[in-house]
Amino acid sequence: MSLDKFFNPESVAIVGASQAVGKVGYEVLTNMIAAGYEGEIFPVNHKASSIEGLKCYPTLEAIGQTPDLVIIITPAKIVPAIMQECAKLGVKSVIVITAGFKEIGEEGRRLEQQMLQIAKQAGIRVIGPNCLGVIVPAYRVNASFAGALPKEGTIGYLSQSGALLAALLDMAKAHGIGFSKLVSIGNKADIDELDLIEAFGNDPQTKVVAGYLENITDGNSFLEEAEKISHRKPIVLIKSGSTSAGAKAASSHTGSLAGAETAYEAVFERSGVIRCNSIKEQFDYAQAFATQPLPAGNGVAVITNAGGPGIMAADAIEKRGLTFAKLTDETIKKLGEFLPAAANLHNPIDVLGDALAKPYELAIDVVLDDPNVHTVLVLLTPQAMTEAVATAEAMVKIAKKKSDKPIFASFLGADAITPAVEVLRANGLPQYDSPESAVLTIKTMVDYVKWRSRSKRVVKLFPVNRRKVEAVIERHLRNGIREVGETESKEILSAYGFVSPKGSVVSTAEQAANVAQQLGFPVVMKIWSPDILHKSDCGGVKVGLTNAQEVMDAFDLMMYRIPKKLPDADILGVLVQEMCRKGKEVILGMHRDPHFGPLMMFGMGGTMVEVLKDVSFYPAPLTEDEAKQMLINTKTYKILQGVRGEKGVDIDAIAEGLQRLSQLVTEFPQIQEMDINPYVIGPEGTMPIAVDARMSVEKI
Amino acid sequence: MSLDKFFNPESVAIVGASQAVGKVGYEVLTNMIAAGYEGEIFPVNHKASSIEGLKCYPTLEAIGQTPDLVIIITPAKIVPAIMQECAKLGVKSVIVITAGFKEIGEEGRRLEQQMLQIAKQAGIRVIGPNCLGVIVPAYRVNASFAGALPKEGTIGYLSQSGALLAALLDMAKAHGIGFSKLVSIGNKADIDELDLIEAFGNDPQTKVVAGYLENITDGNSFLEEAEKISHRKPIVLIKSGSTSAGAKAASSHTGSLAGAETAYEAVFERSGVIRCNSIKEQFDYAQAFATQPLPAGNGVAVITNAGGPGIMAADAIEKRGLTFAKLTDETIKKLGEFLPAAANLHNPIDVLGDALAKPYELAIDVVLDDPNVHTVLVLLTPQAMTEAVATAEAMVKIAKKKSDKPIFASFLGADAITPAVEVLRANGLPQYDSPESAVLTIKTMVDYVKWRSRSKRVVKLFPVNRRKVEAVIERHLRNGIREVGETESKEILSAYGFVSPKGSVVSTAEQAANVAQQLGFPVVMKIWSPDILHKSDCGGVKVGLTNAQEVMDAFDLMMYRIPKKLPDADILGVLVQEMCRKGKEVILGMHRDPHFGPLMMFGMGGTMVEVLKDVSFYPAPLTEDEAKQMLINTKTYKILQGVRGEKGVDIDAIAEGLQRLSQLVTEFPQIQEMDINPYVIGPEGTMPIAVDARMSVEKI
Repeated sequence: MSLDKFFNPESVAIVGASQAVGKVGYEVLTNMIAAGYEGEIFPVNHKASSIEGLKCYPTLEAIGQTPDLVIIITPAKIVPAIMQECAKLGVKSVIVITAGFKEIGEEGRRLEQQMLQIAKQAGIRVIGPNCLGVIVPAYRVNASFAGALPKEGTIGYLSQSGALLAALLDMAKAHGIGFSKLVSIGNKADIDELDLIEAFGNDPQTKVVAGYLENITDGNSFLEEAEKISHRKPIVLIKSGSTSAGAKAASSHTGSLAGAETAYEAVFERSGVIRCNSIKEQFDYAQAFATQPLPAGNGVAVITNAGGPGIMAADAIEKRGLTFAKLTDETIKKLGEFLPAAANLHNPIDVLGDALAKPYELAIDVVLDDPNVHTVLVLLTPQAMTEAVATAEAMVKIAKKKSDKPIFASFLGADAITPAVEVLRANGLPQYDSPESAVLTIKTMVDYVKWRSRSKRVVKLFPVNRRKVEAVIERHLRNGIREVGETESKEILSAYGFVSPKGSVVSTAEQAANVAQQLGFPVVMKIWSPDILHKSDCGGVKVGLTNAQEVMDAFDLMMYRIPKKLPDADILGVLVQEMCRKGKEVILGMHRDPHFGPLMMFGMGGTMVEVLKDVSFYPAPLTEDEAKQMLINTKTYKILQGVRGEKGVDIDAIAEGLQRLSQLVTEFPQIQEMDINPYVIGPEGTMPIAVDARMSVEKI
Repeated sequence: MSLDKFFNPESVAIVGASQAVGKVGYEVLTNMIAAGYEGEIFPVNHKASSIEGLKCYPTLEAIGQTPDLVIIITPAKIVPAIMQECAKLGVKSVIVITAGFKEIGEEGRRLEQQMLQIAKQAGIRVIGPNCLGVIVPAYRVNASFAGALPKEGTIGYLSQSGALLAALLDMAKAHGIGFSKLVSIGNKADIDELDLIEAFGNDPQTKVVAGYLENITDGNSFLEEAEKISHRKPIVLIKSGSTSAGAKAASSHTGSLAGAETAYEAVFERSGVIRCNSIKEQFDYAQAFATQPLPAGNGVAVITNAGGPGIMAADAIEKRGLTFAKLTDETIKKLGEFLPAAANLHNPIDVLGDALAKPYELAIDVVLDDPNVHTVLVLLTPQAMTEAVATAEAMVKIAKKKSDKPIFASFLGADAITPAVEVLRANGLPQYDSPESAVLTIKTMVDYVKWRSRSKRVVKLFPVNRRKVEAVIERHLRNGIREVGETESKEILSAYGFVSPKGSVVSTAEQAANVAQQLGFPVVMKIWSPDILHKSDCGGVKVGLTNAQEVMDAFDLMMYRIPKKLPDADILGVLVQEMCRKGKEVILGMHRDPHFGPLMMFGMGGTMVEVLKDVSFYPAPLTEDEAKQMLINTKTYKILQGVRGEKGVDIDAIAEGLQRLSQLVTEFPQIQEMDINPYVIGPEGTMPIAVDARMSVEKI
C-alpha cells in the first residue's frame, strides 16, 4: 500500500494543536506553517477557536471534510478515541506522535493494541506512536517537532530513535546534506522499517535509502525486500544494539559461534545492505551515493598539494584493498607538460605546495581520461599560495564535463577551507574530513558495485529422501527428544546424500573387538550416550586403535572412567567405527536465527573451531556461488587449496555439502541447530565423510 | 642538549626577511610581529633598510650582537654561506625554512650535507631544512609561515609534513585545541623526531607529546627513549607510509610475516606509544590526556537523554572490551530519588528526553561517587526541552568539584549544541562527535594506564655457550655462506639450551635403514641440501616411517624425484631422525628489522603459519612477562592451554624458549633471521624439541 498521503497530503489535521509555545502541539503546528506547506491545515483543539491565525476545530468531525493526514499529539489515554473518530471520518493516514504506549510497560502496551485494532479495522495506516513525525522537504511537509525543514535532497531516512533524528538533522544542516523524506518510526505499531524501505525503494525522489535501526521486525521479509531494493539503490543503515544479545546457551559449535551480530552481518552481506558504524560514516557514504556515479573498478588516483596527506591516502588505499592506479605513459607525459619539474607525475600526483588552482584543474582533467583510473581523490591543504575556492570551482567544472567517474575531495583544515567546501557541497561534490574517510567511502562504493554485479541467485535442488528424514524427526518429536544423536543425525544426513563411516554400537569389550576385526584396523571408538554432547571433553573418543587388545582396553577404560566423571549420563555403549582415510577436517553447520531463519556456517573443523573462530556464516538457502564464497571467506580456504607442496582437497565437494545441508534445513524447519564436525575431505573426486554429526529439533 | 633557544629566544634574526606580501620571508616576519613576540627581531636583507617598521640589516654581522635564534629563508644555494656567518658569530640555534635540499635529489642532498657540516663543526643545532618553522604560544614565538599563533595549551606537536601542520592548525583552531609547542621538522638534517620527543618529554608545559611521522631515523634510540617518556606522559603519534614497504623477499617464515608495519606495531606496543589512524583520532586522544585524570579502571557509566545514542555507546563499550559499570544499589537508590519514574536508573542512565540540566547534574554527581564507575560519559541530543548550555555548565561545575575521575561528553548535533560545546571546551571537558569516538578514547586511556602499571622490565640471562656459536657463525661467514643449514642451526641452538631430535645424514638407502634401526621406529626423513629451504614444498619430508622397507623406499623416491624437480639443488643426502613424541607445534622466530633490530615472533607452527598468520611480534630482548604476553596475544594460546578435555602444554617452557632465543639474537647481531619450526611442546615438565630450524647470518 502506498504511503503517499503521509508524504504529500492535500490537507492535514493536527489533533492536540496547541497555542502554548514549547508544547509539542505548538511545535508541530508552527513547523508545518513555517515549512510553507501549501495544503490546508486544520488545528483541532476544543479549547481554542484559532491558533496562529488558523481556524481551530473542537473535533475532527467539526472540520466538515476528511483530511488526507491526521497528526495526533493528545495525551495517550484519548488516542484510541481519536482513532475511532478518524475511522468514522474515513481518514486513511495517521501519525501518532504521542508517547506513553508500549515503551512504558504493560498498560501502554494495551493502549497501543487498542488503538492499533481500531486502525486495522478501518484500514488506517499508522506511523508511530512515540515518534517525532514525518518530514518531506519537496512538499514542504514538516509534520514533526524536529525543528526547521531541512534541505531538499535525495536521501530517504528512517529512524527508530527520534532523539537521534533531531541530532542528525542538526548535523545534516551543518554538512549541507539534503533529504527526500525523513520518518521517525517510533514504536512501529503498524508501519515499520520494511514499509519505509519499500516506500523509499520505489520513490523516484530517493536515490539512497538510509536509516537507524535497533531491531528488525520481520527478518525474512527484510532479507528478501532489502535484496531487491539494493539492486536498484544503496541501503545504508546504522544497526545498533546487537552485541550484547548473543549470550544464549547453545549445544552446537555453530550455535555458540552464531550471535545476533553474526546473523545481521550475514543477512546484510546477502542483501547488499551497507552497514555504517556511526552517523558520520553514514553521511560519508550517503553523500557519495547521492551525488557520484558508481566507480567502474577499484583503481584510485590521488592528486595532492602535500606529501603527507598523499601518503595517508596511499596507506588507506592499500589497507582497504583498493588499487593505487598505475597511470599510463600517456597520462604521465601529459602531466609533465604542465606540472613543474619537481612535481611527482606518478600516483599520488603531487602538484606541489605552491600549486594554484590551474595545475589541479589540468591534472584532474588528464587523470580522469586514464583507463586505469576509476575514481579520483583530490587532496588539498591550505598553504600560503593555495587557491582553495578556485580549486573547488575547477573541480565542479570538470565534474560537470566528465561525469562518468566519481570525484572525491578531502580538503584538510577548518576555517581556511570552509568557503571552498561550501562550493563543493553546493555543487554535489562530496568532501571528506580526512583521506581515510574518503578512501573508506570509495571502498564501500566499489564493494556495492561488486555486489550488484553478482550473478542471479539460483538455488540448486538435489534429489533427496525427504520421507526418511520426516520419519526420524517425527519419532524424536513424538517422544519429546530434542537432541538427535549421532546415528540418527547420520541417518538424516544420508537421506540428503552424505556419507558416514561404517560402525556399530557395542556393549562389551569382546563385541568391540569383533566389530573392529570386521571393519579392519585402525578403528575409532566413541562413547555412546544421549547425554554426552561433546564426547572428547570427557575422554569419550579414542582414535587410531590398531589391534583387538587396544580396542578392548579402550572399551573397558571408557566404561570405568566416564560414569565416574558423569554419574548422571545414560551410557548406551561404545561406537566402534572405521577410521577415515586422511583428509582435511572442516565443519559444516547451521544455526536457526530467531529473526532471520537458518544461517549456514563453514569453517576449520575439529576441536579448534571455537578457539580459532575461522568460520563464515551465510543465510540459507545457498546458491553454488554463495557456498563457494563461504569457503573463500575463511583462512581455512587456503589450507584446503594445499599449502607448501601438499595437494589440495575437493573444494567443489565441500560447496556441494553446504548446499545439500542448506536444502535439508530449508525443507525441515524443525531442525534448530546442527554440526557436521569433522567433515573429512580428501583430494578431488573422493567422497567427503561426515565423521560426526549432531542436531537438535523442535516442534513448529 | 637543550633546545630552549629555539622555543624561548631573547632575540631572533630573520635572514631573507622580505617586504613582499605573500613571500615566505614576509610571512615569517609578520607572523613573529603579529604573535606579540617580546624579544628583539632583526630582519636581514641587503636590499632593504627597514621592513614593517623594523630596522633591516644587510648581513647577520651587521646586527652587532649574536641573536639567540636565526631563521633562514634565503634561496637554498646561499644557505651554507649564511650558516658560515652564523658559525662566525657564535649563533647556536638555526631554523632553515628554505626548501630545495635532500627532497629534490642529489644536488640538494650535497647542499644539505655541506650546510650540516658547517653547523656541526660550529656546534650549531638546526631545525629543517624544508620546514614550516617553530611555534610557541606561551612565549609568543611564531617563527613560521603557518598562519596565526594558535591557542596556548599543553600538547607538544612535531610534524614531518609542513603542509599537514598547516591544516592541523586550522582544525585545532576550530576545535579549540591549544599547544605548548609546535615544530615542523622538515628534512630533519640535524634535529629529528627523537630530539623533540625528548624535549617535549622534559618540558613542564607539555602534558601530551603528539606528532606526525613518516619514518623514524634511529629506531633503537626511539624505542628506548619513547619508553622512558611514556611512563611520564602519553605519546600519541600518526605514523604513515608503512604499509607498502614490507614487500621484501625473505627466506624464513618469520621474515615473510614481519613487514615494516609489524615492526612499528611491536615497537609502539613495547614503548607505550599510542598510534592514531587520523588527525581526528589524534585530537580525540590528545584532548582527553591533556584535560582529564587517568581512569582507575575500565568501568564506564553512560548518562543520556535518548535511548539510541545510549545503545550506540553500550555497543561500543562492549566492542572495545571495556566494562559497562554495574551501579551499586546505593547509586540506584539515590538516582531514584530525583529521576522520574520512567527513567532508566541502570547503566545507561536515561534521564529522558525532556530532561533539563538539573537531573543531568544530579545524576553525574551521584554516579561519580559509585566505586564501580571509573569514567563517566555524558550523552546529549538537542530535543525540545534540552538545556544544552546549562547541562555543559553543570558538568563543568561537577568536574571542578570531583576531579579524580575522567568525564567525557558527546553532545550530538551541530548548531544546536555549538554554544554548549564551547562551554565544555573552554573549561577543559573533552567533547566527542559520536559516542563511539568517546568510547575509543576511554579505551585508549585505560590501555595506557595498564601499560604504565606493567612491572619493571628485567631481562633474564641464561648460562650459555657463546664460544660455540661464535665458531659456527665465524665459519659460515668466512666461507661466504649466509644460510645456516638445519644441523648447524641446531648446533647453535643447543649452545643456548635447546634440544633437538637425534639423527644422521645418510647417502644410501641401506645406511638410512641402519640409522633408523638404531634410532628406533617410527622415524622422519628429510632431504638434505643447502639449496632447499622449504623441504616439504618439494616432497622432501616423510614422517611416521615404521619399518626398514618404508625407509628405503622413501630414500630412493626422494633421490629420484627431487633432482628432477630442482635440477640445480646440491643434494647431500637424507636426514634420518627420531620421530618426536606427540605435542603441539609452535614456531619461534626472529627477524632483524632494519630500523628497530631483532623482532621476536611466536605463533602456531607447522606449514600453516603463513596461512593462518596467528603470530605475535615483540622487540628483543624479551622479559619473562613479555614472552608470556606474546603467547597470550595469539589464538594458539588457548589451544596450548588445552581444548575440550585435552591436557595443556608447558607454557612456561615456551616462554623460556623465547627468552633464550631472544638472548641468542641479542648477543649475536650477525643472525639476521631465524625460525624454529616446528618447536614441539608437550605437557608441563617435558622438554620442548626444536624439530627443525634455520637461520641466516651476515657480516656486521
